[in-house]
Parts: sequence; structure tokens; C-alpha cells
Amino acid sequence: MGRSAPRARRAVALLSGGLDSATTAALARREGFDVHALTVRYCQRHALEIDRALELARSLGAAEHRVVDVDLRFAGGSALTDETIGLPRGRDDAAIAAGIPATYVPARNTLLLSLALSWAEPLGAHDLFIGVNAVDYSGYPDCRPAFVEAFERLANLATREGVEGRRIRVHAPLIGMTKAAIVRLAVELGVDVGRTLSCYDPAADGRPCGACDACVLRTRGFAEAGLRDPALD
Amino acid sequence: MGRSAPRARRAVALLSGGLDSATTAALARREGFDVHALTVRYCQRHALEIDRALELARSLGAAEHRVVDVDLRFAGGSALTDETIGLPRGRDDAAIAAGIPATYVPARNTLLLSLALSWAEPLGAHDLFIGVNAVDYSGYPDCRPAFVEAFERLANLATREGVEGRRIRVHAPLIGMTKAAIVRLAVELGVDVGRTLSCYDPAADGRPCGACDACVLRTRGFAEAGLRDPALD
Repeated sequence: MGRSAPRARRAVALLSGGLDSATTAALARREGFDVHALTVRYCQRHALEIDRALELARSLGAAEHRVVDVDLRFAGGSALTDETIGLPRGRDDAAIAAGIPATYVPARNTLLLSLALSWAEPLGAHDLFIGVNAVDYSGYPDCRPAFVEAFERLANLATREGVEGRRIRVHAPLIGMTKAAIVRLAVELGVDVGRTLSCYDPAADGRPCGACDACVLRTRGFAEAGLRDPALD
Repeated sequence: MGRSAPRARRAVALLSGGLDSATTAALARREGFDVHALTVRYCQRHALEIDRALELARSLGAAEHRVVDVDLRFAGGSALTDETIGLPRGRDDAAIAAGIPATYVPARNTLLLSLALSWAEPLGAHDLFIGVNAVDYSGYPDCRPAFVEAFERLANLATREGVEGRRIRVHAPLIGMTKAAIVRLAVELGVDVGRTLSCYDPAADGRPCGACDACVLRTRGFAEAGLRDPALD
């Protein structure tokens, strides 16, 4: 009383509108950070996730939310940015685990973290949060611990903050979790799970296709967690 | 005769419109690469450099040139993206060398290389060229050899190409050169030096201000090389 609370530390959290990034941002909040949420509109096939990110940033209590445009169609090379490349559908776990799929977007997480870093420095934020996962995932090289560690190392060499000794950390708290564990954690943290959108090819009303790799992994996660996915209600 | 020439390897070269990146792209051409030039319009104060990049890509014989938009004003924190931050002017070498100046753009080179990497992978290019320089430069942390090496390491962890063993290389051939040596090299390579724009605050007709750090470094480079800067004619 009469004494002001210590100012919360700021973090930049990448928020795609999917389950994993929303859970990650909620974890950052629970750790006491003021969350500055960043969404990148890269002309992804499932641009509907941007609307969900806007909703989720509000329900998570983000201090601020920005949406940045980078049209990655110039580069192409992914089923998510080039509609002429077919989206894998109906694959089982073995097929999903077998290699890097067509939904891989070249250098996407490098780009997302770069933008987070660009914003973090003027904000005075030394903590970046990203919802990558290396267990129940789609074989993307930029979702692995070695990638996250290499980006953190780069960030500390690339910036004024790093060079002046204010260590920048890249947090990927879900990286070693199963999808079922992420589902349980999301519920525990009060994430509005029904408004998260994982599907790469949702209907115009947001209904997931149920057949893309992201849907397959999410469906299995909810089943293993013994929960019904509220996004299907 | 009758036998087709071996297909040239492709490289992505970041081309800002300045002297250093144009010289770097010309070096890539001399090394036999098909140069895919990439310019990023990040709402920089000196957006006139984009027009110069378009001209230079043509005169260099680039196979292709793309301009990508990323509005870095959302992040701010730099005199180049925030007009309320004053541009340092009239500084001598000691002042320029003393620290990281207001023209530093947080994480810019990380972002530029990320975009180059996004494009390189679908192109089948394993070589990225960037014109950073750590000698006659402005104290930017992301112009140092340790930064370039860390990005190369990251690139090989972040991408399909790297993971599958097709090594990605980040070339920064000017990194250890003085500005005078860069000027001489540019002339030797036939770079249209008079159309390169280094100034952070040019007049509408492209005339350099002569007082910003970039002008000071360029002026000294030409003087030490014993050459007149054709951009001043």
C-alpha cells in the first residue's frame, strides 16, 4: 500500500493464433512478464489465424499486440505460401514423422524471431517467447532445440542489448512436450482453447479441416489428454 | 561449341543501393554466381536507395531482383526508422568509433539475412552475400565477423537445405576491408559507383548530405583511395 509494485519485465511473444503459441504466451504471463504479442501476416494460406491471434492476445491479457506484414509469397517454396503446392492430408504419424513436409516455410521461424528481436530491443525486452515443439510436430528443422539455441546465440551478437551485456533469452517452453501435455497445460492456464486455430486449411467459418498434419497432431493430442477439443463444438 | 555451359550456381545478394552491397554483388558475379538480388524496403529514411538498388541490379547483370516490404517502423528504436530520433551529423572518426549510433536499426541484418535465406532455399541457392564491413563502419554489432558466423551456423540448422547437408554459406567479402579498399575494388569491378547512394539523408535529387556518418566514412574512403566520388559530379 502506497508502494508501487515493481515494474514487470517485458517479453515479446510470437502469437500465431494456434494452440502452441497461445499456451506459450500464457506461460510468459504466468511467469510475470508483460507480454507484447507479435503476429506476422506472411500471406499464409490460413490467414484466418490472424483474427484468432487478435482475440487471443486480448483474452491472454497481452499488454500490446502488433501484426506485421511480410509477404513471403515472393520466396515461395511452401504449401502455406504457394497455393500451387498441395497440402498433405490424411497422413498417419509415421508419414508425418518421415521428413520435412510441404508445409515447411523456408526460414520462417528465423524471420519471426528476427522481427521479435527488432521489436524487443527498443521495448527493453530481453525475453522472446516462441511456441515451437520438437516432439509432436511436423519435422520442421526450425522447431528443434539446436535452432533455438543458435538463434539465442545470434541475438546476443546481433544487438546492442546483447553486446552491452544485457543477455537476451529465447524461451521455447513447449519444445520438449507432447501435444497431450500442451493441451493439458493450455487448459490449466485458462487459454481460450476453443478459439485457437491449428488447421492449415480451415473453412471460412474457422472450422478445422481435420485432415492436414496440424489437425492430425491436434486431434491425437486431445485424445491422449482425454479431452474434447472445444474448437470442434 | 555444341556443348552447353555448366549451369551457374545461384546466390542471393542483399542489395541496399549503397556502395558496399553493390560491390559485394559485383564480387558474387565475378565469382561466377547467378545473382538474385534482394532489396528490403523497411521504411528507411533514405528510401531513395531503393531506386538506386533497382538501377544497380540491372547494371550489375543480376539474374533477378526483388524488393520486399517490411515496415520496421512498428519496432522503431532507430534514427533510420523513426524521424523523431535525430540523425548524428558532422561527427569525426573518434566520435563515430565511440559506440553504437542512433542509426543502428535493431536486428536489421538478422532480418535481411532471414529474408535472403527464405528466398535462397526455394531457389536452390546455398550462398548468401551481404556487404557488411567491420573496419570503416558505424559500430553496428551486426556488421562483425562473429555475427556473420553465427548467422551461417543458424542458417544450417534452420533450413531443409542445411539439415540435408547442402551447406549454406554467408559471404561477407568486404568485412575486413577499409573503405578506401572497397572504393578501389568497386572501380575495378566496374560498379556504377556514381549511382550508389550511401547517405542516410539525401536530398530529393539524391545528392548526399555530406554530414551523416555514412557520408563521412565514404568521403574519407574516396580521399584515401585518391579518387573523386562520381556521386558528387
